[in-house]
Amino acid sequence: MKPTILVTNDDGVTAPGIHALVDALKSLGNIVVVAPDRPMSAMGHAITIGDPLRLEAVDEFGDVEAFQCSGTPVDCVKLAVDKIIGKKPDLCVSGINHGSNSSINVIYSGTMSAAMEAAIEGIPAAGFSLLDYSFSGNMTVAKKYSRLIAEKILSEGIPDDVLLNVNIPALPESGIKGMRICRQAVAKWEEEFDERTDPRGRKYYWLTGKFENHDLGHDSDEWALANGFVSVVPVQFDFTAHKAIEFLKNKWHLHEQD
Amino acid sequence: MKPTILVTNDDGVTAPGIHALVDALKSLGNIVVVAPDRPMSAMGHAITIGDPLRLEAVDEFGDVEAFQCSGTPVDCVKLAVDKIIGKKPDLCVSGINHGSNSSINVIYSGTMSAAMEAAIEGIPAAGFSLLDYSFSGNMTVAKKYSRLIAEKILSEGIPDDVLLNVNIPALPESGIKGMRICRQAVAKWEEEFDERTDPRGRKYYWLTGKFENHDLGHDSDEWALANGFVSVVPVQFDFTAHKAIEFLKNKWHLHEQD
Repeated sequence: MKPTILVTNDDGVTAPGIHALVDALKSLGNIVVVAPDRPMSAMGHAITIGDPLRLEAVDEFGDVEAFQCSGTPVDCVKLAVDKIIGKKPDLCVSGINHGSNSSINVIYSGTMSAAMEAAIEGIPAAGFSLLDYSFSGNMTVAKKYSRLIAEKILSEGIPDDVLLNVNIPALPESGIKGMRICRQAVAKWEEEFDERTDPRGRKYYWLTGKFENHDLGHDSDEWALANGFVSVVPVQFDFTAHKAIEFLKNKWHLHEQD
Repeated sequence: MKPTILVTNDDGVTAPGIHALVDALKSLGNIVVVAPDRPMSAMGHAITIGDPLRLEAVDEFGDVEAFQCSGTPVDCVKLAVDKIIGKKPDLCVSGINHGSNSSINVIYSGTMSAAMEAAIEGIPAAGFSLLDYSFSGNMTVAKKYSRLIAEKILSEGIPDDVLLNVNIPALPESGIKGMRICRQAVAKWEEEFDERTDPRGRKYYWLTGKFENHDLGHDSDEWALANGFVSVVPVQFDFTAHKAIEFLKNKWHLHEQD
């Protein structure tokens, strides 16, 4: 039987990236698209608890069943599994995002939050991002590697409780050296707020920032991307800093109070 | 010199929990409050990139300097550091949340996202949550342990790139056995959508769910909380599943393509 593949994203059903992803994976299985009805970038792992959710069938992907949802990317995955597919799909893919989700961006990313939610629910999952913020960016290379990864997951499997964060350099195919399994680079955004005054004399702020990579290792996703590789980072949702447990037990002496 | 302590939350400046936290820590240092101007629960690590942000001084905390912000909890931390305090505070605390952020809830939590953002920026940080969803819940025990943890962080420090997820049982002080350093339990929400029909005949869905703890270990936060302990989980923002790297390298043979 053909596998069932849930496709979602954080840019909405009209974004070129999700159309490229559907196109790339179409012959691999039965595709169902459930994606936000408007852009939801940088939504982190937000869910909608104070408002009801809407679902609407859309005719955006030819003969592929597709829905738009009023919620976040995480809501899309939850609704897709519970109300549309009615069972766990064999694979959930998110993207192709227009812009990088490498290193610390995994935390802010709506694309990756959808894949993470799928993994929490026990569904093999991956998020794909092209290092080009433009909606007119060339998707050829991103499509090729998204398909390769999806095939690998379906044929080889991935470890339990792990999802993949896949980033693709904005290079022509001839410039790509291959794929690399990496760790998340130690990098962060240095915030800068653009302070302005509105016509009524009140201040407002636009969030901007400079991306700073402090990581010199050759095993990080930032290194791979800067050197022409597609980066593949296995991601987990156990956020425990296991190494810190002993430190805190020994240094804080909390357990005296047991 | 007295330490500078940034206080934030995801329930807004009027929530009893943040007032309890300010009250508990007031004598420890110079407090600055920057919190959302409306409830922002379950916002995950969302940031605001498509809209400008507003900041407004509020007179909610007596002689403690306080601001409300139109953005998410993560936005509050970014704005506080860059535009209000102008430097890294010595400590950032978030909460006291009305309701648990134990185990998998750390991922969805606005409270914890604020603390995580602070940690990313190199600020010692902790999030506090009381296992009582009611705004009228008794904060006495939560205040006591929030202060103890804040004192420990200021005096002993915590490892780099680690923040603390502190959950407090809804018990009278006599029922609390002490604090325990734990790992995040393996638990998740089993979604159930409440499907309804609006007066115009269109379907809508409320997200509900059942919390399921599958973890039998005595070293998890769920175990600690169920047994009368305050749970303290060290949390990291390196999401790499390091153990999966070798598996993928060996099984997927991607590096052949290097």
